[in-house]
Amino acid sequence: MLWSMATSASPCAGVRLLAGNEFPVPASERYFEDYAPGLAREYGYVTVTEAEVRAFAERFDPQPMHTDPAFAATGPFGGLIASGWHTAGIFMRLFVDHYLPGAASLGSPGLDELRWPAPVRPGDTLRMRVTTLEARPSRSKPDRGLVRTRGELINQEEQDVLSLVAMNIFRRRPAPGTGH
Amino acid sequence: MLWSMATSASPCAGVRLLAGNEFPVPASERYFEDYAPGLAREYGYVTVTEAEVRAFAERFDPQPMHTDPAFAATGPFGGLIASGWHTAGIFMRLFVDHYLPGAASLGSPGLDELRWPAPVRPGDTLRMRVTTLEARPSRSKPDRGLVRTRGELINQEEQDVLSLVAMNIFRRRPAPGTGH
Repeated sequence: MLWSMATSASPCAGVRLLAGNEFPVPASERYFEDYAPGLAREYGYVTVTEAEVRAFAERFDPQPMHTDPAFAATGPFGGLIASGWHTAGIFMRLFVDHYLPGAASLGSPGLDELRWPAPVRPGDTLRMRVTTLEARPSRSKPDRGLVRTRGELINQEEQDVLSLVAMNIFRRRPAPGTGH
Repeated sequence: MLWSMATSASPCAGVRLLAGNEFPVPASERYFEDYAPGLAREYGYVTVTEAEVRAFAERFDPQPMHTDPAFAATGPFGGLIASGWHTAGIFMRLFVDHYLPGAASLGSPGLDELRWPAPVRPGDTLRMRVTTLEARPSRSKPDRGLVRTRGELINQEEQDVLSLVAMNIFRRRPAPGTGH
């Protein structure tokens, strides 16, 4: 099984900062110290297509509410809805493109409180809100720290369609002149 | 942006029950009552391909640790690793194919404690373990109930590569002769 892209256009082309404060430096120069708790930022918009809803679900979540429009129309949501994992992927793409640092990102141990409070339907237009909750230097590894972030995706009717609390490990900014 | 499948083979073809008790009825006939807390089941195996790791990440998580083998070789994991969201998708496919009921599945409000305790690398062979933790009838809607399940993906070295606690809403079995 292999996925391939039918077009090379970025799904996030044209996404822009909607609210909050832009980071002081671009992602490639960001480190742990650039994630000040308390700041919220919003980026949008991304439009969800039926073709991608169905293709994603055929591979990863083949429940008919995600793959079969006729079945879905008779189901509890009254129509086709995106897999929650597809919604999470849309969130992650925005999170990578606009929030995470570049080379200073050292991965994630996991996340908590992933919720899908309202369904995502083809044609929905979503924006991301990210709020830095906590930035804690590592006690055992002085070159890095843990950042906790509340992430949300919000639809055109101002409903939250995804929320989560992410944990990410970021490198600390090297001291000037250390050669690191 | 549209994904398409290069082959139509199921990634889970040949996956079989490895441990635990098979459900008494096939998925199409399963309801809330078939999810008895305490039972663990295992299904495997699924092998992860580099092509899918890179294709998934290009769309949903374009960090170079997931997309660029040369960069990844110099990074903290010493080689290309799968996006945690791709790993979650692999888990979900097994969960849908082997654990969830068919038409009795009414969606999920979310999940907790999603963790990626070890990286997934191309060539890894994974199996799923699912343990039903709790099955609670709804107080407000007598036709359904909430099932909580611990899900794990385990690699060929017996390392957990994903764990989570899922919440799912399932229909209750209709009483005989009610016409429901």
